Amino acid sequence: MQSLPVRFVLLNTSHPGNIGAVARAMKNMGLSELILVNPRQYPDPEATARASGADDLLAAARVVPTLADALEGCGLVLATTARGRDQNFRMLDVRAGATRMVAQLQQTAQPVAVLFGNERTGLTNEELASAHLLLRIPANPAYESLNLAQAAQVIAYEILMARNLPPRPAGIAPAPLATPADMERLYEHLQRVLEEIDFRDRTPSGANLLNRIRRFLQRAELDANEANILRGILTAVQSKRRIAGSAHHE
Amino acid sequence: MQSLPVRFVLLNTSHPGNIGAVARAMKNMGLSELILVNPRQYPDPEATARASGADDLLAAARVVPTLADALEGCGLVLATTARGRDQNFRMLDVRAGATRMVAQLQQTAQPVAVLFGNERTGLTNEELASAHLLLRIPANPAYESLNLAQAAQVIAYEILMARNLPPRPAGIAPAPLATPADMERLYEHLQRVLEEIDFRDRTPSGANLLNRIRRFLQRAELDANEANILRGILTAVQSKRRIAGSAHHE
Repeated sequence: MQSLPVRFVLLNTSHPGNIGAVARAMKNMGLSELILVNPRQYPDPEATARASGADDLLAAARVVPTLADALEGCGLVLATTARGRDQNFRMLDVRAGATRMVAQLQQTAQPVAVLFGNERTGLTNEELASAHLLLRIPANPAYESLNLAQAAQVIAYEILMARNLPPRPAGIAPAPLATPADMERLYEHLQRVLEEIDFRDRTPSGANLLNRIRRFLQRAELDANEANILRGILTAVQSKRRIAGSAHHE
Repeated sequence: MQSLPVRFVLLNTSHPGNIGAVARAMKNMGLSELILVNPRQYPDPEATARASGADDLLAAARVVPTLADALEGCGLVLATTARGRDQNFRMLDVRAGATRMVAQLQQTAQPVAVLFGNERTGLTNEELASAHLLLRIPANPAYESLNLAQAAQVIAYEILMARNLPPRPAGIAPAPLATPADMERLYEHLQRVLEEIDFRDRTPSGANLLNRIRRFLQRAELDANEANILRGILTAVQSKRRIAGSAHHE
């Protein structure tokens, strides 16, 4: 079975045993790209023990210091979350999410990433900010407590099941998504421009303004051209400001 | 979420941690009936630790000495297996199997059982003999190595997903399945009759004859009436023999 370019990105994992169990879950379902962002304790004999025959995945796992490193070159980014709905994100059940991932991979070569947060604290808002979609595992509302390895198992299983579905009829091939790094540059640019034009959020929670913009732009799943259009607008705003600024000082 | 009468039956489990992880997987997906047949080490702190917030399921878990005890009153029995196809059994992928279980429970009140064998050795032929169907988890053919807790997680998840499907249109309500205990009595009866009529298998593997009959009768998923019809036929064969026997000795 050919491996799909789906990266499982584990952030700040506390228990090395979970890393091994995730590797096993992935290999069982034909996935192989495991990336560890800042694990607390790794490598570790407990990781190797729980990986069982999937120690090749562990050996090939990349350990990186930041999420941005893990997402290099990626297209679609999905975040797993145990929290309730967040109206700023589009949320998909894991079955629909897996179908989406596989459809995406039939159309572009960009790897897809699935983010898994720390066992106790989950993904931080900062980590969530790179995601296009939230992935939800349907569960008993009275007890939603899948651990990291169980969640990874269900998601990997649904990805394998989605591979076996008939491919969707080919429409117009979409442009590749803007990469997470492109999007970061866009948001930094936007932040600079907002400062330059002295734009202040009027709401009490002013610090969240940029986050709210991030979220709806993430939800839009911009392709590279669309991100460039926004960059161009921002640059145009800056030029105009500079000319206007010069005019004032003349 | 109301608990479904689906029993997860763990046979001869070696690692108590797996028992805890199965309890957690079940509770997450709205299941609660856990039965342990002859566990190697239980109760155990490792089981409690891995159960996390599902310790109520562990506390309620029944520990019994034999599979027959675990199956008391059950209808449909499904066996999980990592082995290849066995042409004597009907095999369903876990998604189809879960749909089947839920449909069965919409029609009869008999609990459904799912059997999980020992971690290393799986289910014995004797344990498989009570099953109507085999349940297969689709996986990477190059590495099919789900552990007990991972398999339980995927199955419990598919059962929850199947509950959310629209119910099948009601046809003629089927009679309840013959219970595993009824079926055992039928097979014992059959064995006695085969001995009485001095029937010998002509094949080299004569010892397997009764097993082969068991398997196709299990596959037929007999209801109580059908099992009774077979019992009646066996009794009739015996009566005839006795009369014939008496006649000889007159």
